[in-house]
Formats: sequence, structure tokens, C-alpha cells
Amino acid sequence: MKKQINIKESPLFWPANFKNGILYVLDETLIPRKLCYIKVCSVRDAVRVIRQMKTRAFGQFLVVLNAFLLVIARDSTGSKTALLKRIKIAAAQLNSSRPTFPFAEVTSIVVGWAETAVKTGVPIKEFVTRNITGYLAGIRSRRIERIAKIADLIKDKDCILTHCNVSGELAMAAALCQQKGKDVHFFATETRPYLQGAKLTSWELRRMGAKVTLIADNAVGSVLADGLVSKVIVGSDRSCANGDFANKIGTYQIAILAKEFGVPFYVLTQPSDKIKKGEDIPIEIRDERELLTYAGKKIVAGPVKGFYPGFDVVPHRFITKAIAINAR
Amino acid sequence: MKKQINIKESPLFWPANFKNGILYVLDETLIPRKLCYIKVCSVRDAVRVIRQMKTRAFGQFLVVLNAFLLVIARDSTGSKTALLKRIKIAAAQLNSSRPTFPFAEVTSIVVGWAETAVKTGVPIKEFVTRNITGYLAGIRSRRIERIAKIADLIKDKDCILTHCNVSGELAMAAALCQQKGKDVHFFATETRPYLQGAKLTSWELRRMGAKVTLIADNAVGSVLADGLVSKVIVGSDRSCANGDFANKIGTYQIAILAKEFGVPFYVLTQPSDKIKKGEDIPIEIRDERELLTYAGKKIVAGPVKGFYPGFDVVPHRFITKAIAINAR
Repeated sequence: MKKQINIKESPLFWPANFKNGILYVLDETLIPRKLCYIKVCSVRDAVRVIRQMKTRAFGQFLVVLNAFLLVIARDSTGSKTALLKRIKIAAAQLNSSRPTFPFAEVTSIVVGWAETAVKTGVPIKEFVTRNITGYLAGIRSRRIERIAKIADLIKDKDCILTHCNVSGELAMAAALCQQKGKDVHFFATETRPYLQGAKLTSWELRRMGAKVTLIADNAVGSVLADGLVSKVIVGSDRSCANGDFANKIGTYQIAILAKEFGVPFYVLTQPSDKIKKGEDIPIEIRDERELLTYAGKKIVAGPVKGFYPGFDVVPHRFITKAIAINAR
Repeated sequence: MKKQINIKESPLFWPANFKNGILYVLDETLIPRKLCYIKVCSVRDAVRVIRQMKTRAFGQFLVVLNAFLLVIARDSTGSKTALLKRIKIAAAQLNSSRPTFPFAEVTSIVVGWAETAVKTGVPIKEFVTRNITGYLAGIRSRRIERIAKIADLIKDKDCILTHCNVSGELAMAAALCQQKGKDVHFFATETRPYLQGAKLTSWELRRMGAKVTLIADNAVGSVLADGLVSKVIVGSDRSCANGDFANKIGTYQIAILAKEFGVPFYVLTQPSDKIKKGEDIPIEIRDERELLTYAGKKIVAGPVKGFYPGFDVVPHRFITKAIAINAR
């Protein structure tokens, strides 16, 4: 039996939409100041919004899938093999946009559909479009199901600490908890250097009417030590077969601290992919300027170097429970 | 035998100087943009520079002691008891400036000197001035001695992680290491929200010619997990009889992480004061605006609350070794 869920959607839950041949991507870097969508008209545009972190996490996944709809919409050759070739080129471009997220696993699915269409003689445009659309619809409903799972996990009087941003799911779970009369409080970490916690998570939790307090990434140990947190819930950017996962830099240390203070640590996992264990995940080292400047101004003087690994890997032994997306 | 040390002084090593009746206090909030001193002419001014965190850590201590020289310089009554009363009032004002630092322990020493002068009939102004000046000179030489101890602790090829700022001592130890031909690297944490690591520590380490890399407070677990750190060295704002200590928020979680990864954790301690154990240290909760704004602009939207404990307490069991100031 399907759960009946009636909650307002957070813009971060579905931050990219394909409409009339254009992909509209939520510019997450402008939140909370502006709710603004970037028009993405080509694969090159798609790679750019990913690289510049205009969109991130689930948004990247949506952009990658929808980018193929752009390729199809722009194709005027009429030749199946020419389109297949263009789809393969797009896949390669998207795969190289950022290293940590498993883009190749997503793009290979689409390339597979295109190849099937060519082999079996079905109309490639219609077949690939229908498959992408159906696939996205499936993911949407399974994410809604997971929101219900998260809301079930959260009990009355819970105080949840989260890190970075889990693309709408926690905020919508918070709304669901409120509907059920649960009194819940959230701590959002700032999540330097991009401040996703300050700019996205606290914004969307507040928008959903939840009680949220922002803390510096520094203060996690302190609030845990003071017994102010009952559960930690984070997302994951990449999951491994053995349960290890990569997520925004800082997640690993939160996991260690949660264990030190006996606080349960939950992670929303992606379908476990082809990577066996955490140490095999390539970690993106981002440009030091993203750390050394703030709002366009340098925060350091002289030739100080910065080191900004975008992600870290949490070994599975730190996970109390993984909250997976249901299998299809 | 006294160690011979010949190194350039970091401005943060002695950030307040009394000259011709005026106290010049280094404005640490303007570093690294400007090296600029605030003229402090009264106890009220002194309290203000402390509250606004224009100076911090060791600078606060210097300001508190020197503030009594201001009281003496401004006194024109000629009456011993009137001056003693003014010294006591100044002590009370200074004690109430910030809660975590043990101001009362410092001011009570000066009040004691003034009372002794009144009781024994020695000239109060000269007696208190000489005592303060002598006390400061003693501290200066013992801090120089500690810098040599820190430099001894640091070995060739060490990679030292530090947090917040230890008022010149680590930077000067780095210079000493260089003189001895040791190749040392430093990681400085940003230390949100005031960014003392980015603005002060990386600046003064670079100024001393040391190699320093800035990381987000988030990335401590990651660099430790990757084996990039051989020692952690931090300061302390307040030490307890049992070895627990309070320091800038974030120190506790670094201590836990260092232990998790088997990296030695050293702390530069103040003379152990009258507080028995860590849980007795009052923790200052600073104004949430210091967290919610950056360079005068809000980083969050709407009524998001912030929680900014200025310090946390590290239980002594996490300390590999405390590097104390030598006893007088």
C-alpha cells in the first residue's frame, strides 16, 4: 500500500526541470537571497552549472539525466547513429565534470537505452525520452517514500543534527513530523566553505516551519558533549557496496564525534554502486580559492595555501542505519 | 642556564604596550589587512576592546594588567585609599568583561599589591607599577622559554595542526625550527566564526617564513585520516587543577579526532588556576549575530537562530602532554 503524503515540496527537492526544450536549474548559490533558475540549453551549459556548483548533490543527478533530453531536443540529423554518437559524446562530457559523484553510472544507463533503441529498431528519440522520464518519475516517488521513512525515524522531542544539505528530504520530513504533532528541533552546521548548511538547510527547514539553529562546524563536538543532539542525519554523495559512503567534507568527523558521544548516526544512501569500498572513491580536491576567499574577497594575506577536499569518506562501522531509496 | 633565543617577535606575541601613559592594543580584527593599534586611555576602553574581541587570548591578559597602569597614570587624588578604591572598581569592571577567561585571578593579584602598599605604607603608585612591570617581564621571558620547548617538541618533517591562534608562540617556534634546519609544515584551521586561523595564524606563520596550509574546520577529520598530520598543538584560555582546559570552540572535537587517529595532542597551558575541573568553567555564549553575519552581511535568511558557544572544554584524558609556562 502506498503511503499517502501531502506536503509542500522544497525547491531543493527537485531543483531541475525540463520544460519546452529548456532545462531550468535552481541556482543554489543565490539561496537564500533569491530563488532563481538558470536556463541550461546545452550539455556544455550543464557541465558548467555542475562544475561551478550552481547545483549539487541530487541536483547534479537531475542535470545529468535531463542533459540528454537537451541533446535529443537539439538533434536535427534524423540519423539514429548520429544521435547515438551525440549521446555518447554528451555522456563523456558529463562524466568528466566532477570526480566524486558517479556520473558514469548514470550516463551509462542512458547510453544503454540509446544503444538498445538502435539495435532493436525502435524510434530512439521517443524510447530514450520515455525511459528518462519514467526513470525520473520512479525516483521522485521513491524519494517521497523515503521522506516518510525519515519522518518515522524522527520521534517527538528529537533534536537532529545535520550537515550540508540533503536536497529537500529532511525539510519535507520535518514538515511531515509537524503534521503528526511531533516537536522536533534541528541543528544545521554551517558547512564551510560553501555554507550549504547556513544558506540552504536552515533556509529550507525554516521555510517548512521547522525549528532550526545554525552552529559553526566547530561546535559539533560541543553540542554533542552537552547532550543537545539525539540523532545525526546526513546525506551521501556516493555509496559503496560495503556500506562506506562519501559525503560533503566534515561528515566523517561528525560520524566519529557521534560515536564518541553515543548518538545514533543515520545516512540517506544512494543505491549502492559499483565501487566496493570507501578508499576506492576518488575525492575531488577543489580550487583553494573557494576556501581562501569569501564573497569575492580574500580572507588571508600573502601566499597562504589552502587545501579543500570536497568530500570525505565515512567507513560503514560508524553508521547506525542507512536509509536507502527503495529498490525499483 | 638560560637558553639563548634570537628570533623576530610576532606582533601577536605581545599585542599590547603601555607607552607614555597610553595603552596601545593591536587590533587583531584588522589583521591581515592592517597592522594597527588602538589607543586605550581608560578602563572602559579596555573593557570595550576585550568585549569586542579586538584583542583576545594573551592580548586580553595584557590589556587587563596594563589597564591598572592607566588607572595609576590617570589618578590625581594623591590619596592612597582613593587610588586603592579606583583599582578595586577597575578590577570589578575588567572581571565582568568576558566570562571564560579568569580575569578575576589576574586582577586580584593587582588589588593585593595595592592593598599591601596601603597597609605597609610604601608609595602605592610606584609599588604597584613596579610589580606589574616586573610581573609582565617575567611572563615575557617565560613565554620565550616555552617557545624553545615547543621548538624542541617539533621534529624535522613534522606536520603540525593548530586551531585558532596561540598568540605568537607557535609562529616563533616555527622560526626557531627553521634556524635549526627543521623542515616543518603547518595546517591552520579557519576557526569559524572569527576566522582566527585564517586571519591570524596563517598570517603570522607565513610572516615567520613557515609553510602553512589553511583548511576548513570541517577538514580536520579528513587530513588526520589521510595521515597528513603528525602532531596537534593548541593553546588554552583556561586551565583546571585536574588538567582539563577550555579553549576556542572546536578544540574539543579536534582532541577527540586526534585520539581516534592516534595523533599526539599537545596544549600550551596557562598556570593551572583555582578551578578544579572542566565542567566548572563558565562557557561564554556569544551573540548569534557573530555567526549569522559575515563582513556585516547576513548569511542566512529569515528568523534562523544561531548558537555560538565561544569555547569548549577538553577533558585531560585527551592530552598527550601539556606544555606549561615555567613556574616563577
